[in-house]
Amino acid sequence: MRLQNITPSNTFSTSSVPSGNRAIVYNSNGDPARVLSAVSFPELSSPPPDTLNIRLLLAPINPADINVIEGIYPAKPHPDVSLSQSKDLLVFVGGNEGLGEVMEIGDGVAGLQKGDWVVLTKAQTGTWSSAKNVASSDVLKVPRQGLSEVQAATITVNPPTAYNMLHDFAQLAEGDWMIQNGANSAVGQAVIQIAAAKGYKTINFIRDREDVESLKSHLELLGATHVVTYDELFDKSFRAKVKTWTGGKDIRLGLNCVSGKTTTLMARLLGDSAHLVSYGAMSKEPLSLPTSLFIFKNLTCHGFWQTRWYSEKSLEERQELFDTLTALMRDGKLRDPGHEILTIGRMESDDSASERIRELVAQLGRGMYGKKVLLRIEETA
Amino acid sequence: MRLQNITPSNTFSTSSVPSGNRAIVYNSNGDPARVLSAVSFPELSSPPPDTLNIRLLLAPINPADINVIEGIYPAKPHPDVSLSQSKDLLVFVGGNEGLGEVMEIGDGVAGLQKGDWVVLTKAQTGTWSSAKNVASSDVLKVPRQGLSEVQAATITVNPPTAYNMLHDFAQLAEGDWMIQNGANSAVGQAVIQIAAAKGYKTINFIRDREDVESLKSHLELLGATHVVTYDELFDKSFRAKVKTWTGGKDIRLGLNCVSGKTTTLMARLLGDSAHLVSYGAMSKEPLSLPTSLFIFKNLTCHGFWQTRWYSEKSLEERQELFDTLTALMRDGKLRDPGHEILTIGRMESDDSASERIRELVAQLGRGMYGKKVLLRIEETA
Repeated sequence: MRLQNITPSNTFSTSSVPSGNRAIVYNSNGDPARVLSAVSFPELSSPPPDTLNIRLLLAPINPADINVIEGIYPAKPHPDVSLSQSKDLLVFVGGNEGLGEVMEIGDGVAGLQKGDWVVLTKAQTGTWSSAKNVASSDVLKVPRQGLSEVQAATITVNPPTAYNMLHDFAQLAEGDWMIQNGANSAVGQAVIQIAAAKGYKTINFIRDREDVESLKSHLELLGATHVVTYDELFDKSFRAKVKTWTGGKDIRLGLNCVSGKTTTLMARLLGDSAHLVSYGAMSKEPLSLPTSLFIFKNLTCHGFWQTRWYSEKSLEERQELFDTLTALMRDGKLRDPGHEILTIGRMESDDSASERIRELVAQLGRGMYGKKVLLRIEETA
Repeated sequence: MRLQNITPSNTFSTSSVPSGNRAIVYNSNGDPARVLSAVSFPELSSPPPDTLNIRLLLAPINPADINVIEGIYPAKPHPDVSLSQSKDLLVFVGGNEGLGEVMEIGDGVAGLQKGDWVVLTKAQTGTWSSAKNVASSDVLKVPRQGLSEVQAATITVNPPTAYNMLHDFAQLAEGDWMIQNGANSAVGQAVIQIAAAKGYKTINFIRDREDVESLKSHLELLGATHVVTYDELFDKSFRAKVKTWTGGKDIRLGLNCVSGKTTTLMARLLGDSAHLVSYGAMSKEPLSLPTSLFIFKNLTCHGFWQTRWYSEKSLEERQELFDTLTALMRDGKLRDPGHEILTIGRMESDDSASERIRELVAQLGRGMYGKKVLLRIEETA
């Protein structure tokens, strides 16, 4: 059953009565350009003990969010209890990541006060909303000082993915080399910057495109040691070129968000006892490797999923990671991802908001949007 | 330059003069059925300090030995100094594994005496010979008691490969499940037996064949929990069948010596956070896996190469492994591999021996010999 088929008066107010809040929701999996709707809902009541009410300032639309709505992502969303009418009509708020500002604090919540910035560390709770009640154990405080809203709103998925992949598998030291594909993705750009901050040398693959030189310059400005297109991988002389760059030093870490043929070629550039860590498969092809790389070069292939990392780590470990990342941001070593903000205004009707969000996700679905898009859903008038 | 093109009188005695020893050698890489020759050579002189002279009782022909001769194996052989005429005419003795009996001990060698059984732990020193001088640091003593010559002669490659793959990657406990392909290979059969001794349950894949039921029975007798053909993997109901067997328990370890399509399907049977360890690629196809297995199921893919293991481990660790394996053999838990022995007799001419060895390797090269073949090269009359 789709939300847009429900008579509005039975569910949420879409009338002229100002109701305080708005969220982008769905109640059945499918094409986001069909199943998403903007709905208004009343002001939040006072937070129960151990919870807090937050106003969501900005929430990104990550590729995985689309897959969650489509129902093809392994992490399943939690229904929004207050928006759901019954167990048979569950409503899900879209979005997994976002920046909140603490508005009101329930009894028993320590270490947080009104006006603090927080991010959600519990996956799939729904962040495409103007406000939300959350358990205090599901948020982490983020220092406001020195951070932009965009940096804070995108701090829980891409930068930690980049940071952990650089640190959890190969033990790299300053001057060591690593290699990655999809280097212009949000994670790829974070990898370039964190690696540069640590003194690691990077070889970065991107797709050829009309403005490839300007993209190369951009990534080099972020700290990339070398930026190359996949076409160069097919050139037989490329291996020798890499050897010249590295001085014959083994490349011990490869990061992959593409898979398919070019990743097979990239893996051949790795040195002895290297680690290849996959976090995506944009080619939609499998990861295919000669068995000899495993046996004789002692290659190890891993996957990385930040959601799993959070579920396995203690609050202290999560806090430590955030402190490291926010320090990098404050020091100007980890910048805003290239982005665009879609604001759903306080005076806008739900119908108009629904239409705009569907248009946007349809565009995103056609691939290569090139920029991270964030939603700013204002409180309604 | 090929050994068979050298005038025998210029190099080794192939005449009627009894010369004491014989080896299967080559001096250029290529098809073993072309480049291998039997050559006679004199009795060994007394061993220099820290070395010993051993009589080789039995030496297997392993698949990797063929690849070494072909020149396509990453581990390169050491030339035999005493047989090589000059730096420009290096002679290599075939074989990597074998059982020796100590004949004579050089000064400074401790812990070994005449009549002791030893195996070579230095890779690619050449074992297809009737006798050999070796450094005492390159051998390990093997207890004669309770071991057959065949067990001792094949103890350094296949059983340790099986043992280490079962223990170095996933932490299995009694009652846990593992899965493997190529289950009727020498390693596969050792895996079945060691797993059974440890109380691990095994699912074993083999190729369909005429006498498949008798092979299944044989592997079940060795301790296999289930033996299935690859054809069953393609059946959609197979996954459910495996779930019934395991009671839904995650399979945490897969061993692969095949790669290609069937290994992709086998990998899908693995549970969360499993390890897939490759030690061969009999299909000659790559290992191709959906990237989602890495990301969302936390699969880790490794390779295993016993040669690397030896190079990285201390003498104490190697000795410990041998003690474990010989104990399993003495207890009847790890039996002789199915085998056949080719004896090069003391009265046979080098020409006849050369011919027989070339015929044998040609047969082995046509694949699926089904049995391990060992060489017994007698001293010459």
